[in-house]
Amino acid sequence: MDAYEAITTTRAIRRYRDEPIPEADLNRILFAATRAPSGSNRQPFRFLVLRHGPAALEARQVLAGCFAALWGAKRAGDGYDTGSGTDPTSPKARMAATMQHFVDHIADASAIVLACTRARHGGVLHDGASVYPACQNLLLAARALGYGGVMTNWHQSEAARLAEICGIPDDVTIAAVIPLGRPVGHHGPVRRRPLPDLVYEDRWEASAPWAVDPPGTRFTGGPPAP
Amino acid sequence: MDAYEAITTTRAIRRYRDEPIPEADLNRILFAATRAPSGSNRQPFRFLVLRHGPAALEARQVLAGCFAALWGAKRAGDGYDTGSGTDPTSPKARMAATMQHFVDHIADASAIVLACTRARHGGVLHDGASVYPACQNLLLAARALGYGGVMTNWHQSEAARLAEICGIPDDVTIAAVIPLGRPVGHHGPVRRRPLPDLVYEDRWEASAPWAVDPPGTRFTGGPPAP
Repeated sequence: MDAYEAITTTRAIRRYRDEPIPEADLNRILFAATRAPSGSNRQPFRFLVLRHGPAALEARQVLAGCFAALWGAKRAGDGYDTGSGTDPTSPKARMAATMQHFVDHIADASAIVLACTRARHGGVLHDGASVYPACQNLLLAARALGYGGVMTNWHQSEAARLAEICGIPDDVTIAAVIPLGRPVGHHGPVRRRPLPDLVYEDRWEASAPWAVDPPGTRFTGGPPAP
Repeated sequence: MDAYEAITTTRAIRRYRDEPIPEADLNRILFAATRAPSGSNRQPFRFLVLRHGPAALEARQVLAGCFAALWGAKRAGDGYDTGSGTDPTSPKARMAATMQHFVDHIADASAIVLACTRARHGGVLHDGASVYPACQNLLLAARALGYGGVMTNWHQSEAARLAEICGIPDDVTIAAVIPLGRPVGHHGPVRRRPLPDLVYEDRWEASAPWAVDPPGTRFTGGPPAP
């Protein structure tokens, strides 16, 4: 598929078909991930793939538990079941249904990738420049091959437990947890803020005349409004 | 161009032709950047593009100064001019020549993008998940459209000065500086460590039988050896 189309239409996919990912495709997806840049090409990123091994089975249960707890707290705290959320056709209610399905089924995803990196004391922002480009390569390659996934950080409360289960060393941080599978639903154009809100020229908040959205672009400002 | 090919052949490009990037292409590159995921789709990333404006001209000089200083220190400290570095055909000497050219000409790049994000106290590792995927989208889209760039963090000693010149608020961090231009030289397969060093299954450092490099893959373990 076309590169520009892949980049502009890779959605966060949170519902997966009950189909394994063939190993040849896993190979291509992980190879693509590792082609990403890193500072001085030091390649501190490591990808730990969970499928059906003994550690994977245990880690899946831990992830299911902490994802469910975090989503439960967010669902209540952010008022997903109040206001427009009481209408099941509202964007808020539909997002809540997707998230509930996601945490209820995360343990069953065909593969779950722990994207790890070596960084001192858990890492600072700039350490992310040597692992998150690789995560994005992984998601784009998955999309190009007919799969989907989502980059999450909901594992953090159980990071020590996951490290113990999988033998991850003390100086390594799990930078992201990325479930992968064949999408239920579709990729397609993603929604973001209008381009002039995100792209400036010369000075902060100075609009660039050329930074305009293509005709037909649809927008969103962030999580569903109350 | 094909998505998988773009992902696996995007090199760090540090030499640029003296050609402007048409605004229609800048538009497409920045639009692609902003299609990246971020936590809860909050889109904290902002891209400040430097071209020929008054702030850009001043910022370019500041970047040229701090890149040259940093490279000078690294060139001496890492012994680029000793050992195999005395042979101008060695990988080490060629890398040194490329880096010297890069810092000598950074001020003249057709466009320099400051990738910024809002993050508390400069940000932790996980804040990078909401800005570096967008930087990678930017580099991949540039590659797909015939351009190239490189993600750098060499601005950090002058971050406050750059913020002052460009009016960047206190709660915003420059996550990366990305010069862009039409490449001298070519994109092509990138070199990384062997896949079994980077991809594990089930447990840390446990090799996955499917995680093998395609035939003909060439490797590198990091910066040039002494």
